[in-house]
Amino acid sequence: MKKNRYNTPVQQKKRAIAFGALLLCVFLGNAQTQPISIHEQGSFAVGGKVKTSPGSFDPIAHGAFNPADQSTEGQTLHGDHATVLYQIPVNANELPMVFWHGYGQSMRTWQTTPDGREGFQSIFLRRGFPVYLLDQPRRGLSGRSTEPTTINASTDDQLWFGIFRLGMGTEFYPDVQFSKDPEALNQYFRQITPDTGPLDINVNIDAVSALFDKIGEGILVTHSHSGGQGWMTAIKTPNIKAIVSYEPGSNFVFPEGEVPETIPYMGGALSARGVPLRDFKKLTEIPIVIYYGDNIPNEPVENPAQEQWRAAVTMAKLWRDTVNKHGGDVTLVQLPDVGLKGNTHFPMSDLNNQEVAELLSGWLKEKGLDKH
Amino acid sequence: MKKNRYNTPVQQKKRAIAFGALLLCVFLGNAQTQPISIHEQGSFAVGGKVKTSPGSFDPIAHGAFNPADQSTEGQTLHGDHATVLYQIPVNANELPMVFWHGYGQSMRTWQTTPDGREGFQSIFLRRGFPVYLLDQPRRGLSGRSTEPTTINASTDDQLWFGIFRLGMGTEFYPDVQFSKDPEALNQYFRQITPDTGPLDINVNIDAVSALFDKIGEGILVTHSHSGGQGWMTAIKTPNIKAIVSYEPGSNFVFPEGEVPETIPYMGGALSARGVPLRDFKKLTEIPIVIYYGDNIPNEPVENPAQEQWRAAVTMAKLWRDTVNKHGGDVTLVQLPDVGLKGNTHFPMSDLNNQEVAELLSGWLKEKGLDKH
Repeated sequence: MKKNRYNTPVQQKKRAIAFGALLLCVFLGNAQTQPISIHEQGSFAVGGKVKTSPGSFDPIAHGAFNPADQSTEGQTLHGDHATVLYQIPVNANELPMVFWHGYGQSMRTWQTTPDGREGFQSIFLRRGFPVYLLDQPRRGLSGRSTEPTTINASTDDQLWFGIFRLGMGTEFYPDVQFSKDPEALNQYFRQITPDTGPLDINVNIDAVSALFDKIGEGILVTHSHSGGQGWMTAIKTPNIKAIVSYEPGSNFVFPEGEVPETIPYMGGALSARGVPLRDFKKLTEIPIVIYYGDNIPNEPVENPAQEQWRAAVTMAKLWRDTVNKHGGDVTLVQLPDVGLKGNTHFPMSDLNNQEVAELLSGWLKEKGLDKH
Repeated sequence: MKKNRYNTPVQQKKRAIAFGALLLCVFLGNAQTQPISIHEQGSFAVGGKVKTSPGSFDPIAHGAFNPADQSTEGQTLHGDHATVLYQIPVNANELPMVFWHGYGQSMRTWQTTPDGREGFQSIFLRRGFPVYLLDQPRRGLSGRSTEPTTINASTDDQLWFGIFRLGMGTEFYPDVQFSKDPEALNQYFRQITPDTGPLDINVNIDAVSALFDKIGEGILVTHSHSGGQGWMTAIKTPNIKAIVSYEPGSNFVFPEGEVPETIPYMGGALSARGVPLRDFKKLTEIPIVIYYGDNIPNEPVENPAQEQWRAAVTMAKLWRDTVNKHGGDVTLVQLPDVGLKGNTHFPMSDLNNQEVAELLSGWLKEKGLDKH
């Protein structure tokens, strides 16, 4: 055997130590305690508009910060963009995952869970995916809006406790996958963040579409209110190669002429939207998976917070059948049907979110979306 | 020599390839292209208040999302917290760095620069520091406020272009450390994000103080409007072991009886605050460094956007002298005096931000704050 520079006794000892350390890591470690090796990370704004006031700006007359000086002459405002936080792991998979939050939420949906464990951001980084988290226009870090708004600061935590299916009133559902440590609920409520401009789904779709124009092909992961917007974004950009939709609630799109009737429920009604068949067909060209959690009734109940999800699941099944009838590949999974019980409206941060992630990984693998 | 599992021809070839790859990295690589190894990362809310409406919540009557239903009976709102994004590198230094943005800004101040390079978040991670980025209450990801507000969406980019000393009107200063690629200015303007509640420095100080209660001892890095709030936070919590202040603009605190006169300038006037001597003395117990950039005049000029920084530097020098007279350790550096020319109000993201970071690293080392 050729003697080489790696075979000195010191090198042998170093290797033995390194190998021992490796074994120790394998035996003591678990996924969450291993380091994450980041090739590149950062943030940027994407999309958006520029609003311009007529006239010309006079820096001498109006260049001091003075709230009483309302002059906007010749000034601009850059707003309506999305803000994106990204991390690319070393040795990354080909397709990135782009995570889009729901109503009243931000990129924090995908970060640390309310009870302090890793969310989908770190979980899927560890699984090799470049991860992009976005704040849609007029939300969170994308605060600048070209249109004004008023934020009421109305108390509404218990409304969301119900709609997000943690429980009813202030009582948790018995089987809920949410920590009973009061700090978890405190963190959960503090993830809520208001709109800083009028909510406009076309503004959102434009910005997320611009994101895919910038980064190229990827997998879009939506939650709740971004679900319907996700279908419309995939119609707009060819770079969305798959959609994972957690608990889509509204804005289901059907071919014109095939739009189902409005679904009434206790507390409201859920309508679908019609789009040209040519646009709809784009949704038949990519694999799509939809997940819903637990405590969604099959029959009408008196609790409106559960009712809206009964309507959503009903609509989602009609939608799945319609896309698939046109040649699509939509899978709809109700988590209790595959043995995952007690999930809320936020499966990605529930107590069993590692199992929820494992389920998604299986689907991504099956569809060839986790290639290296 | 003992034959071992590492000495197969395949292993030898692998080692040769690995060694070649390593050499390639050493020769081609620079700090920014090496992976960052993250021991732990995540996000959380800290501090804040809970607002409660009287009465009891009826989930059947008010549990549907219905903007027309304004009932808040028995509901809560969790608001006024800070939101924190953190990363702890493998083999970290003892003291973390906590980064607090300025007026109209968010944690994005410390992330990717407007021209797409690494900001202080990644730069100081690479230098071994646990890094905590915060959005103060009622800003960015900390959007929930216990008090209402209106966001005007007024055009004001050019006001900030001046105050942030990129230039005057729409013209860059000739030597400015800011990319002339229009996309850089586009990104820069989109970092601005509005208050989502009334700006209240006591609310901010409470939340940042709660952060240090949670994480323990650390180094506070402030920018602009957080500068003065930083002094007050260090009076409130003993866990702030050093302060780095980029371009503090207001809220300088002096001992009662030693408060200097208001400094008038073109477009405004800068006043200081008095605090009990016992509180002030706490600022003499930690090392503090203050940095200001370029294009700050020594004598009055007609441009109010420069004038306010002339006043700020004047006040900061009085403050330095007063803290040091009481036994403190304040260093004030005007970057042009140490050879760094053209810096704006954002030295941490200017074109020469690696040099700005290097300067800070030197100070941290000198004060023993980068211990392992």
